[in-house]
Amino acid sequence: MAAQRSHVRTSLVALSALLVLSLSAHAQTDPLPSWNDGPAKKAIVEFVQTTTTQGSPQFVPPAERIATFDQDGTLWVEQPMYSQVVYCLDRVPALVKAKPELAKVEPFKTVLTGNLEAIAKLPLPELEKILVATLTGMPVEQFSAEVKAWLAKAQDHRWKRPYTELTYQPMQEVLKYLRDNGYKTYIVTGGGQAFVRVYSEQTYGIPPEQVVGSAGGTKYGYGKDGKPFLTKEPKLLLNDNNAGKPEGIYLMIGRRPYAAFGNSTGDRQMLEYTKAGGGARLAMLVLHDDAKREYAYGPAQGLRDTKVGTFTQVLYDEAKKKGWTVISMKDDWKKIFAFE
Amino acid sequence: MAAQRSHVRTSLVALSALLVLSLSAHAQTDPLPSWNDGPAKKAIVEFVQTTTTQGSPQFVPPAERIATFDQDGTLWVEQPMYSQVVYCLDRVPALVKAKPELAKVEPFKTVLTGNLEAIAKLPLPELEKILVATLTGMPVEQFSAEVKAWLAKAQDHRWKRPYTELTYQPMQEVLKYLRDNGYKTYIVTGGGQAFVRVYSEQTYGIPPEQVVGSAGGTKYGYGKDGKPFLTKEPKLLLNDNNAGKPEGIYLMIGRRPYAAFGNSTGDRQMLEYTKAGGGARLAMLVLHDDAKREYAYGPAQGLRDTKVGTFTQVLYDEAKKKGWTVISMKDDWKKIFAFE
Repeated sequence: MAAQRSHVRTSLVALSALLVLSLSAHAQTDPLPSWNDGPAKKAIVEFVQTTTTQGSPQFVPPAERIATFDQDGTLWVEQPMYSQVVYCLDRVPALVKAKPELAKVEPFKTVLTGNLEAIAKLPLPELEKILVATLTGMPVEQFSAEVKAWLAKAQDHRWKRPYTELTYQPMQEVLKYLRDNGYKTYIVTGGGQAFVRVYSEQTYGIPPEQVVGSAGGTKYGYGKDGKPFLTKEPKLLLNDNNAGKPEGIYLMIGRRPYAAFGNSTGDRQMLEYTKAGGGARLAMLVLHDDAKREYAYGPAQGLRDTKVGTFTQVLYDEAKKKGWTVISMKDDWKKIFAFE
Repeated sequence: MAAQRSHVRTSLVALSALLVLSLSAHAQTDPLPSWNDGPAKKAIVEFVQTTTTQGSPQFVPPAERIATFDQDGTLWVEQPMYSQVVYCLDRVPALVKAKPELAKVEPFKTVLTGNLEAIAKLPLPELEKILVATLTGMPVEQFSAEVKAWLAKAQDHRWKRPYTELTYQPMQEVLKYLRDNGYKTYIVTGGGQAFVRVYSEQTYGIPPEQVVGSAGGTKYGYGKDGKPFLTKEPKLLLNDNNAGKPEGIYLMIGRRPYAAFGNSTGDRQMLEYTKAGGGARLAMLVLHDDAKREYAYGPAQGLRDTKVGTFTQVLYDEAKKKGWTVISMKDDWKKIFAFE
């Protein structure tokens, strides 16, 4: 009987040991398989461990775990043009069909020619007219439906794939890794808040209420049937770029992030503001230095400013000085896209 | 052996039955113990059951479960004056100490007399000067610290308790009941967003990022030490009242609520907008008809508009017509406060 009991006890110990082993094997599964070992990956893993391990001097209570991500150039491709700008240009023919008088008026006339070089040369105030005409003046539900329909058909010219497939796989892993460790992940984009909210949940697992972006006002009114609806107005409430990013974070979230990710000068203040908080803070900049697998621009291309995503040498130097970690797409990422 | 097996089987059946009984007893624990049985309680329970039971034709996916609550007069006492107005008046002496020249200038001069009747008669533009002087012009962290310090000391005159104890226990139960069933609960207040965010988590279990309120802009800048900080600006970005409530919900949440709770004309559009969505939607109005345990005003007091919380007869009639449920504090609530 004693021998039997001891046998049972031994089996239980073995079983427990097995269980512990399998649990820790699970815990040790690489959460960032698309990342090469290096300072960037190390910075992310160390940040998560130090802020989420009970008893760590830099432990962050779950309620305060906020991480913010720029979108264009940080979570998905922004070259040769922001997807939302492509959307606005693509909407022009339908717009002119509804209001034929626009066909003879600039900037719509130029857009209709389809001459990309001429379109690229349109001055900013003219481009703004296109944004106002295609992003405002309709009920919010109609806008969402139009974006959804466009996303289902539109394709990037280089990869011949829907824009929503051009997200960076390594960043998708960071989003998931942070969420698995109790972080609320937010998009904080200079792009249109209403535009990004249409696909954020399906594309990034980020619900609309966790998308902060440049936002226009809406106007509450009633239809002929007496039903209330909201119309998108050409009135800018939040320009979520540069200083607008920390301002937008305060307005929409009300807490300072513990981690922030960007790729251009428009993200500078968000990284700065994040890093200026106490305790462990993570600030990271994606450097586009992989002309082969994606694009090379900014410091990777002789420091010149590019039309979009102006990650300049100045920003690069600031990153080094302020302890932000630069992510080299070429060196730090095993793969760029999920479909590779 | 067969008899033994059958015995084991019987015991297992008995055990399962016990387990089922205890589980269903648990499930049947009243989630709203401070509510009397009646149409209001029934409406809440039926709404939760129909929107959260798998297979129900009105099932709402967890991600879309949004419930919005007005604060003043809906979650806590708003009479005789909004707590935030009391806060602003209470701040005036400290303000004048820092800027002694204000002592001779209206409206500060009147506020310093402490004559409540005279203060109550200040015209709105004068009152606004007090709000601007006490709510803006300082770093956001300083503002939060000042509100926190005030909340720790300030007491309501009637109950001699901190304002944060004057929340309605039945509404606290609704908040918890909805959250337990996968709803994200939001405050959507005409009051200051930054003010309410200071105590929302501790008082209601609602984190700052789920507080939508009237919001001013902030300005990003740098201190002498080079550290960045945000300053509260006297610039209104969102007047979260009336039509501003659905507009604010679109800006800050981006989804239409399935349930909304209010108590005054300032909540009309939020309830209307909520109810205009498809499927099961819950719209409720708290009627202050309990002069003994709290206050009676609005339709309960000869239909007159009151200075705050204008729940008029017009709104009351609209509620009946549009299928909003009126909550009678007198009849529907067993207790008003947790401390009773």
